[in-house]
Amino acid sequence: MPDAPKDFSRLCVHTITTRPWSIEEAVGRYSKAGIRGITVWRQALEGRDASAAGRMIRDSGLSVVSLCRGGFFPSPTAKGRDEAVGENKRCIDQAAALGAPLIVLVCGAVPGQALEESRKQIRDGIAAVLDHASAAGVRLAIEPLHPMYADSRSAVNTMRQAREMRSLLGSPWLGVAVDLYHVWWDEDLEQEIAACGRDGSLFAFHICDWKTPTTDLLNDRGLMGEGCIPVRKIRGWVEAAGFNGFNEVEIFSTSRWATDQGAYLSEIQKAYLNHS
Amino acid sequence: MPDAPKDFSRLCVHTITTRPWSIEEAVGRYSKAGIRGITVWRQALEGRDASAAGRMIRDSGLSVVSLCRGGFFPSPTAKGRDEAVGENKRCIDQAAALGAPLIVLVCGAVPGQALEESRKQIRDGIAAVLDHASAAGVRLAIEPLHPMYADSRSAVNTMRQAREMRSLLGSPWLGVAVDLYHVWWDEDLEQEIAACGRDGSLFAFHICDWKTPTTDLLNDRGLMGEGCIPVRKIRGWVEAAGFNGFNEVEIFSTSRWATDQGAYLSEIQKAYLNHS
Repeated sequence: MPDAPKDFSRLCVHTITTRPWSIEEAVGRYSKAGIRGITVWRQALEGRDASAAGRMIRDSGLSVVSLCRGGFFPSPTAKGRDEAVGENKRCIDQAAALGAPLIVLVCGAVPGQALEESRKQIRDGIAAVLDHASAAGVRLAIEPLHPMYADSRSAVNTMRQAREMRSLLGSPWLGVAVDLYHVWWDEDLEQEIAACGRDGSLFAFHICDWKTPTTDLLNDRGLMGEGCIPVRKIRGWVEAAGFNGFNEVEIFSTSRWATDQGAYLSEIQKAYLNHS
Repeated sequence: MPDAPKDFSRLCVHTITTRPWSIEEAVGRYSKAGIRGITVWRQALEGRDASAAGRMIRDSGLSVVSLCRGGFFPSPTAKGRDEAVGENKRCIDQAAALGAPLIVLVCGAVPGQALEESRKQIRDGIAAVLDHASAAGVRLAIEPLHPMYADSRSAVNTMRQAREMRSLLGSPWLGVAVDLYHVWWDEDLEQEIAACGRDGSLFAFHICDWKTPTTDLLNDRGLMGEGCIPVRKIRGWVEAAGFNGFNEVEIFSTSRWATDQGAYLSEIQKAYLNHS
């Protein structure tokens, strides 16, 4: 088990975690709180120039850790799949302008379409944008999503699937994002993290907690320590695999979004030190 | 892909599917509708004599397919684990009195307790009741539960885990229950079903559907055809593995329970013929 974090030098917060804040407010608040990393959700950039947003972030002493999110490759029609490839290329361009070294991919799924077909479309979609990504200097990370999202959000639901897809595509620009919410239950998690470490594909580490009871499938994530995920233990596995990037707090929570975000940010920082 | 079911001779309905009905009403209605199997939830037996209930069921021309549910073995205390073993033995006695040849095990989990510890406690708990089960002539089926229930309902979340636990315990009285709601997303499902078929451990097959969106983690299951699960295709895998038991409709649905259960039962039968 690793030691508790000593400071916030490796803490990154996703803009969606404090969704009520504009990106300008989030950057100001995170920076003032001593947080050093930010992952930007695309909706936070709406109506902004990505290059200018990137400058503002760096001028505030923050690093852009990644841009969320690309993906959603599957579609029942060729036109839909082409559009998804186009949208992912625009996302790559936006990441490059922002100065984000990484895009997290929520790979996508089509309700009622066979999962193996969606996985094939995901592979094809990623393959179609990899050159664009490498030319832009932007890495892509496949984030396996919890099986409860296999119907409509991602047909990639385990670390093994993400790692195998990455191996198959064989590009150093493609890796895996480990989000504890999605994979904490997986018996093979430790060995899969180690395997990603061995092939240099462990690109991101997202933390939060799983509450009991969970009242909403999407927007009831918990703060570290509020649930059953052994966050620190798994951080140990991730670090043993050679990962030394940011610990990214990504929490969708309707109840938290309804509270004072400044107080919430303080709670996040406390939870980060005590439970991650 | 197998043919559509031709009749209701292999249709079983779980009492919880039509929860508003008493067991007496459920038995009368199922029987009149030509349904031939019933799985009894223990709460439906409250205040009844299990032997008498079993006679009533058989007199109505129905087979008791299984009793739901045993399990919930893990506990942070030895006393809690002993009590769970006692409760499971009482459940076995009740199944024997009812004339149920099988108990479905929802294995249990303790929020915050390591999943590997819960799995060990599950193995120990099952091992402690297996003799009692064989003496009573009642089989036990480990039902892997969806990973979204790993926090509090079951630390056994994949077919592989269920099958491996069954192999480890090595009893012909112990097998696996395949519930599509829990395992439909699993990339290894077909091969795991085949493996269960090879070692004679495929004891039960539960059907329903996964709706998009799903609005509640527990009580928003869909009727076959309402969601994304390829029910008929997977029934083909189950039958190819040698299973020739009942297709059990197990649906928890707050919205369905609020409707007329007679009309709902007709819908279930229609969905069974058209989508399973």
